[in-house]
Amino acid sequence: MLSTLEWTGSSVRLLDQTQLPTKIALVDISTPLQMHDAIRRLVVRGAPAIGVSAAYGACLAAMNFQGPLPVARQAVLDAADYLATSRPTAVNLFWALDQIRSVVRRSVATSVETLCQELLAECHRLFEEDRSRCRRIGEIGLAWLLERVKHRPITLLTHCNAGALATIAYGTALAPIYVGAEQGVAMEVYSDETRPLLQGSRITATELSRAGIPVTVLCDNMAASLMREKRIDAVFVGADRIAANGDAANKIGTFPLALVARHFGVPFVVLAPTSTIDATLPDGRGIPIEHRNPAEVVEPFGLKTAPPGVAVYNPAFDVTPADLITAIITEKKAHAAPFRF
Amino acid sequence: MLSTLEWTGSSVRLLDQTQLPTKIALVDISTPLQMHDAIRRLVVRGAPAIGVSAAYGACLAAMNFQGPLPVARQAVLDAADYLATSRPTAVNLFWALDQIRSVVRRSVATSVETLCQELLAECHRLFEEDRSRCRRIGEIGLAWLLERVKHRPITLLTHCNAGALATIAYGTALAPIYVGAEQGVAMEVYSDETRPLLQGSRITATELSRAGIPVTVLCDNMAASLMREKRIDAVFVGADRIAANGDAANKIGTFPLALVARHFGVPFVVLAPTSTIDATLPDGRGIPIEHRNPAEVVEPFGLKTAPPGVAVYNPAFDVTPADLITAIITEKKAHAAPFRF
Repeated sequence: MLSTLEWTGSSVRLLDQTQLPTKIALVDISTPLQMHDAIRRLVVRGAPAIGVSAAYGACLAAMNFQGPLPVARQAVLDAADYLATSRPTAVNLFWALDQIRSVVRRSVATSVETLCQELLAECHRLFEEDRSRCRRIGEIGLAWLLERVKHRPITLLTHCNAGALATIAYGTALAPIYVGAEQGVAMEVYSDETRPLLQGSRITATELSRAGIPVTVLCDNMAASLMREKRIDAVFVGADRIAANGDAANKIGTFPLALVARHFGVPFVVLAPTSTIDATLPDGRGIPIEHRNPAEVVEPFGLKTAPPGVAVYNPAFDVTPADLITAIITEKKAHAAPFRF
Repeated sequence: MLSTLEWTGSSVRLLDQTQLPTKIALVDISTPLQMHDAIRRLVVRGAPAIGVSAAYGACLAAMNFQGPLPVARQAVLDAADYLATSRPTAVNLFWALDQIRSVVRRSVATSVETLCQELLAECHRLFEEDRSRCRRIGEIGLAWLLERVKHRPITLLTHCNAGALATIAYGTALAPIYVGAEQGVAMEVYSDETRPLLQGSRITATELSRAGIPVTVLCDNMAASLMREKRIDAVFVGADRIAANGDAANKIGTFPLALVARHFGVPFVVLAPTSTIDATLPDGRGIPIEHRNPAEVVEPFGLKTAPPGVAVYNPAFDVTPADLITAIITEKKAHAAPFRF
């Protein structure tokens, strides 16, 4: 399997996901500035993965620091503030940076070196925790499926990439598939290509086919036809931020997919770690939606697809209202509506 | 304005729509074989435009013919049969070829030359009729809008291309916009890019911006976000085949768009000439859906977007059930549900 992120001892080695599926390119990140750029350009993406990446990014501020301890502490806090501006929607980013800020505040280190060790230990902990949380999401999600779907293969539809490459390992929406594969449960996946950045065809199809899971790619607007043909047992997606009432922000296109699933009575399941839940927001209206560069739509990967100078609408996320969600599966449990976390 | 199709005196000059938006390339078609290929490769596309094109294609069989009259007649009928295999979904194709077959059967010509003149006259009649029918659809569609939407600009969302370049002139879904522009009614269009072949960004955005109509391109999966923001007054789309009950086949992605429009109470209107109505089909279940080359999805315009060898699902059309359609506007009238033609 490909690794999303590895600590080399002095830098963070990221798989450059902008190069998939044509190239497996690794990039070494040694400064908070480079990490900010990598997150913004989607070299690393997926709410859990950018949380862990940003934490390491803030840690790099201390590791690169030459000077007295109080200034080093401030440098880490400044780096955390800066990294928090890399993307607006995923709450895991802010959550992971808060863990780093807590380490700085709680730290009893008497040298920059010790502070670095404490920060690095916290990053490694976040890394390991993400892996084990995703594994747990996979186990709970698989149990949820096995209770409800008796035929084989179980056929899931997913959108964007909420797989191993959106996290440290296993993924969120795809975790039940990997855990199922380990246990010999026959699974099959339809993957929306997910315009504009094609994470579904470039990333999800790549990681699933490398893992030997049968995967079929379709354009986002074809999912309704699949469901009309009764070929989908459930829709499994990730989330970037979940409000207290269960409204869930995820990659653009998730909300209309939920509407289609509801029309056909197909269960629509959101899988995400509890760090994705933003208890400060009563509902989805408060979730900021990132609007990205028009070129992503009209010059995808350098291809000119529209007349020059045309106006473009390019929100990167949408919010699926809780009442369209059958279950929200975290590392703790499968929540059913009405959602209370 | 760009012309979809022109008769040069000895050939059909088509705008090569596969080259838009980067190139305005014209291609001369001199044989039924070339026309079959042009229709199959979508050099010319749009249900009304392929009907007229196919008619000219069959006519070319007679014009190229050297030999006795009865064999010439058979050559035209054979060409019509062959051209009918170029694409399966649009019924206008079969309808236009039936007009050509009638000319052959009714013909009292005593020479191949006279037969050619009769056929060519029929093609020119189909050409002019398409233009005037589309103009009429535009007038009826505009009146429908002006009755219901009082603010300006009127903002429409469309999918794929049902514009001038899908017909001889004016288009179907876009005809009310062109007629409105002539009459000084402020209009604005959001155009779904329409994966996989991007007719919305490549063709609709090109023809509207050339005509001076404000147009904004979005990915298909973003339309729900637009409607949630209450930015759309109505969805206007074309159709490739309409069953007797009003179920309407159109470009893939139309059906989920209708579901989204229904969710937000946005009127969803199908505009098409009566030649699109297939009275032989009681409902949409009988409409054959073309499945096209996987490369359209995973190698769009030469760009590799998925790992090699991945499976692909690529239906070119879907069927919107009549109960999601607010009105069906033909050159005769605006039909309201329940539809009876």
